[in-house]
Amino acid sequence: MNVLITGFEPFGGMSQNPSSALVSWAEQEVFPGADVKAMTLPVTYSKCAEPVVETLHRWKPDVVLLFGVAAGRQAVTLERIAVNIEDAPGLTDNDGEAPVDRPVVKDGPDAYFSTLPLRSIMENLHEEGIPAAFSYSAGTYICNTTMYRVLHEAAEHGLPLQAGFIHLPASPDMFPDGSKPTMAPETVQKALRTIMNTIIKKEAAV
Amino acid sequence: MNVLITGFEPFGGMSQNPSSALVSWAEQEVFPGADVKAMTLPVTYSKCAEPVVETLHRWKPDVVLLFGVAAGRQAVTLERIAVNIEDAPGLTDNDGEAPVDRPVVKDGPDAYFSTLPLRSIMENLHEEGIPAAFSYSAGTYICNTTMYRVLHEAAEHGLPLQAGFIHLPASPDMFPDGSKPTMAPETVQKALRTIMNTIIKKEAAV
Amino acid sequence: MNVLITGFEPFGGMSQNPSSALVSWAEQEVFPGADVKAMTLPVTYSKCAEPVVETLHRWKPDVVLLFGVAAGRQAVTLERIAVNIEDAPGLTDNDGEAPVDRPVVKDGPDAYFSTLPLRSIMENLHEEGIPAAFSYSAGTYICNTTMYRVLHEAAEHGLPLQAGFIHLPASPDMFPDGSKPTMAPETVQKALRTIMNTIIKKEAAV
Amino acid sequence: MNVLITGFEPFGGMSQNPSSALVSWAEQEVFPGADVKAMTLPVTYSKCAEPVVETLHRWKPDVVLLFGVAAGRQAVTLERIAVNIEDAPGLTDNDGEAPVDRPVVKDGPDAYFSTLPLRSIMENLHEEGIPAAFSYSAGTYICNTTMYRVLHEAAEHGLPLQAGFIHLPASPDMFPDGSKPTMAPETVQKALRTIMNTIIKKEAAV
Repeated sequence: MNVLITGFEPFGGMSQNPSSALVSWAEQEVFPGADVKAMTLPVTYSKCAEPVVETLHRWKPDVVLLFGVAAGRQAVTLERIAVNIEDAPGLTDNDGEAPVDRPVVKDGPDAYFSTLPLRSIMENLHEEGIPAAFSYSAGTYICNTTMYRVLHEAAEHGLPLQAGFIHLPASPDMFPDGSKPTMAPETVQKALRTIMNTIIKKEAAV
Repeated sequence: MNVLITGFEPFGGMSQNPSSALVSWAEQEVFPGADVKAMTLPVTYSKCAEPVVETLHRWKPDVVLLFGVAAGRQAVTLERIAVNIEDAPGLTDNDGEAPVDRPVVKDGPDAYFSTLPLRSIMENLHEEGIPAAFSYSAGTYICNTTMYRVLHEAAEHGLPLQAGFIHLPASPDMFPDGSKPTMAPETVQKALRTIMNTIIKKEAAV
Repeated sequence: MNVLITGFEPFGGMSQNPSSALVSWAEQEVFPGADVKAMTLPVTYSKCAEPVVETLHRWKPDVVLLFGVAAGRQAVTLERIAVNIEDAPGLTDNDGEAPVDRPVVKDGPDAYFSTLPLRSIMENLHEEGIPAAFSYSAGTYICNTTMYRVLHEAAEHGLPLQAGFIHLPASPDMFPDGSKPTMAPETVQKALRTIMNTIIKKEAAV
Repeated sequence: MNVLITGFEPFGGMSQNPSSALVSWAEQEVFPGADVKAMTLPVTYSKCAEPVVETLHRWKPDVVLLFGVAAGRQAVTLERIAVNIEDAPGLTDNDGEAPVDRPVVKDGPDAYFSTLPLRSIMENLHEEGIPAAFSYSAGTYICNTTMYRVLHEAAEHGLPLQAGFIHLPASPDMFPDGSKPTMAPETVQKALRTIMNTIIKKEAAV
């Protein structure tokens, strides 16, 4: 079972991103039952999804777990849907782009649901004592664009793929004054292990 | 150096309280440079402060660290002041009491400042990557009553005491759905160790 | 120009709903340039959209403005998308239903974008000093179901219709203690007038 | 009955302040049963309280209502206590001052309670449908300094004075995007009228 795990570079003035820290950690871990490839993606509308799309065709992963940070959230949030909008007038990407009401894919469908087993994942995270919730908006910035692009590629090419996006809370070093909620790196790592176990067991049960 | 550490029982429908979990943990740890006594206090206006006040006179601690939980906060919050009000009409204590606008101590002063070295504690928590902030209200429930009573006792009897109250965020198992921000027990334990180190080093420097 | 305006009954223990108060107000107002029909919808998955769908075919409105309340929001929020999910395990509708992960329309598309001129509406609300923002999730309760069903009906039948959903903050009498943000009824009424003017002027400009 | 009503200039990058707008409104209104003097205070630690203190001795008001804005709050908040701390490292006043842990009044008491009839005021605001709540921290910036200075002056000179501080939410034009909760000016004006009526009736009842 091939699992691709991605995170993002820092952006928007942040000096770090817990999703790329998670990728670095995952690269050095063993996940019994899975071959894992991990990569950090650029935070630009034009290039964010490219490394993933290329890997879809070359390495043929069974599962794609896209991770990003959503400062302000207080749980691991499982994104249920990606929308065909890029719209972040006040927040430039790392190329300086700030689109308004632009489709991710011209004439693409309005939205795609995640194809990960989100309810099982949430239940297992709760059992491990890790705060977790569904989210119905991955935003209209790079995270959503990446999720939409990957799900669109899978749909267009009929790839038998489980893919989706998971937002992490900020890490404690990003907001030492507690001005936003944070999650400890150890908890985030435990969350990834729980997510992997959920998917591997589900696969084994088929 | 004698250090008294306290937490509280669960209350208000909660099945646990991270402050009593911290007390249980502290009882089994060694803090070089300090003799530690730890206890869990009852959540009632009439009895919350009694075990502490009695210990002040019998064991003569140099430092009193009162811990409680404030569900909704996203940092270790260092209370700067206790006020002479008990007022929680909608929230009964574990004896069923729900006072309105009642003084903690009749004819006592309006408020007492914490006598802990709060700024050094906050700086050291930040250095350890632990979210921490000052708070200017410990509420008007049992936490505030305990803090006021202890500071009043020290003032009345001229006890050479450093004392104060520290509120912890909820623990993850209290809000698995992430409906309130939480802090991992490991982070809370690291916070207590950092607070102890700050106080012990300050003392040694005198 | 025919404009259908809808609100909802109270639900979930609330004694009122600012969207039905808005409907009552709109029924007695004159909006030059528009014929207005206003109605209050039942808060049940099975019947919420029926009165609207029936009116689509019988009265043939040019515009459908669906209003509801989202307690906790602090602006008039313009919903951009409706999703094909009904999922509110902990919140029964007024018939006692509480579906889990059920599609609004079996085999329907994952989502529909609003067809209202949302950006012009937002800009005009801002000019009038009324807090307003886009929202990318109308939830997975009755509001979303109604929005999805109306947009699906329009898409299936090729109706030349501008339709969408707008969430209002709670009204002040719902949270007198300020435990959630609220918006004064006068401000909500001014918002509806501004929305109507935006749509009527756009139409006239065509 | 002489009533002094104060507000503040804009500060911290804001282009307006709903408390000075309230003062302008109050100057042109009639409040039967009261002689009203209204003034806007400078946002500096050194001068904020001076015009009030001078008026205490010259005009001898029976009531002092100090108003300010607390962006982020969603109710009229009745401050119960002023503390003897000035501490706002990241927020300079309009003179460029940013003190750390400085007392408002050297060797002054730790805190003063408001002497306004706050519970009656809150109950009457609720009856009028205006969101209102107690607050136990007026911050450690200019608002708190003004409140502390006025209550200290009254205490030192034994002035038979009802005085206190009331924080208003931001006004809608400050956050058109709804990024913070706001209160309409009409609601704020109705709140002032309700507060005045509460105090005048209480006085008449004595």
